[in-house]
Amino acid sequence: MLIQSPKNEKVKQWKKLLTKKGRDQANRYLVEGDHLVQEALLAGAVEELIITETSMTKYTETSFGSVGIQMISDPIGKILSETETTQGIFAVCKKKIDTKVSGIRFLLIDAVQDPGNLGTMIRTADASGIDAVIIGKGSVDLYNPKVLRAAQGSHFHLPIVQGDLSEWISHFQSESIPVYGTSLQGGESMYTLDPGKPFALIVGNEGRGVHPSLLQQTAKNIFIPIFGKSESLNVSVATGILLYYLRGNDSVVGKEI
Amino acid sequence: MLIQSPKNEKVKQWKKLLTKKGRDQANRYLVEGDHLVQEALLAGAVEELIITETSMTKYTETSFGSVGIQMISDPIGKILSETETTQGIFAVCKKKIDTKVSGIRFLLIDAVQDPGNLGTMIRTADASGIDAVIIGKGSVDLYNPKVLRAAQGSHFHLPIVQGDLSEWISHFQSESIPVYGTSLQGGESMYTLDPGKPFALIVGNEGRGVHPSLLQQTAKNIFIPIFGKSESLNVSVATGILLYYLRGNDSVVGKEI
Repeated sequence: MLIQSPKNEKVKQWKKLLTKKGRDQANRYLVEGDHLVQEALLAGAVEELIITETSMTKYTETSFGSVGIQMISDPIGKILSETETTQGIFAVCKKKIDTKVSGIRFLLIDAVQDPGNLGTMIRTADASGIDAVIIGKGSVDLYNPKVLRAAQGSHFHLPIVQGDLSEWISHFQSESIPVYGTSLQGGESMYTLDPGKPFALIVGNEGRGVHPSLLQQTAKNIFIPIFGKSESLNVSVATGILLYYLRGNDSVVGKEI
Repeated sequence: MLIQSPKNEKVKQWKKLLTKKGRDQANRYLVEGDHLVQEALLAGAVEELIITETSMTKYTETSFGSVGIQMISDPIGKILSETETTQGIFAVCKKKIDTKVSGIRFLLIDAVQDPGNLGTMIRTADASGIDAVIIGKGSVDLYNPKVLRAAQGSHFHLPIVQGDLSEWISHFQSESIPVYGTSLQGGESMYTLDPGKPFALIVGNEGRGVHPSLLQQTAKNIFIPIFGKSESLNVSVATGILLYYLRGNDSVVGKEI
């Protein structure tokens, strides 16, 4: 059956997933576009596929395995889309609640507001081989469409925990994983740390940085040296530099927690 | 005199600076906001200051030295602003045409389209102590307001040349500065290069990367290893990781060209 009416009950439910409140209530979110939908399918996260009439011609019946497909008119596709020119394919995904982590490299994110930044940081954490990302209170919603787009599928690649950063710092410390804050004031150069060792790195809000109460809990607070005249770095860029520096190029002989 | 009419000749001229065509014709551009205006003043780039009635109360007559100030009504400020809530201060700046460079570390940018990316890359080049940035054809306008905002004043901190990248590659090679392209296909890990030596690094377009014809001119093409499951990194983040890796922490005993 082709859904054509914006008043259709399913369309109403899907539209709710475009807001944080709707996503929280339904415990579900919407991904859009070929690449993200494929990543979601691979991860087994998809409950329902939604495809426009026009886009349907691109696929065969067997493209998506056993996942149910709902066909919609192109105008309904425009309603659901967060992009200027939609690829006409969406997936309703169930949130995956990660609560435990294991590994030797972690990224903790404190109150990052910009969805592009948060998504890019998750993508970078994935690329640098981080074992899990912990997102504290006050960050933009992890399932915001712009966060999903910037992360380019990394939501499906590594555990992402939403929790209390202060408690997680204590947890990592109890497991002998040193926790490093980032701070332009009162910190030490990242070069005072040797690469290739276990770490949990905290990065923070675009304006104020990492909250002072968290910086007091850490083993050390570090900064990236500025060799030129700029005052600071963009938080996504800084996160990439720090994660790649701390990882280093050698394989790590570390402990698993 | 307070300018209140959108039809005022000056307002018409300023509005033209909001488009690339207008900036090219006038050889001037507009910066907005306290921080950028201060940076432009420090650099001696400002020809005229434009301040709204409301914002004028924040400053004293002597805040800006001898630069002429034009007061405008708040609604005119809204017309000139590219932000949601303007700080009500603008400066008309004359383009600074850099053609020569000197130093041992260079960043070449090939056809980067997103203004946030280009601005962030200039800011990062500044932070990492790059001696000059060379921007090739096909990139977003260097003086686009979003590029200026993302660069946070770095336009005024280091030479930025607009030119033919192929010619610049030949120039650096003739000066014995090795040129490295970036390429996910057919390249070598960045870790095959030792940090702390002179370099000219080419980074490229968000979709296609560095143009193949440029990659054929280089000494070596490199990539950032992906340790996780993501396919690639955001180009601004990748630029930051590469520039900080190649610089290294030690002072460089290099040659000046």
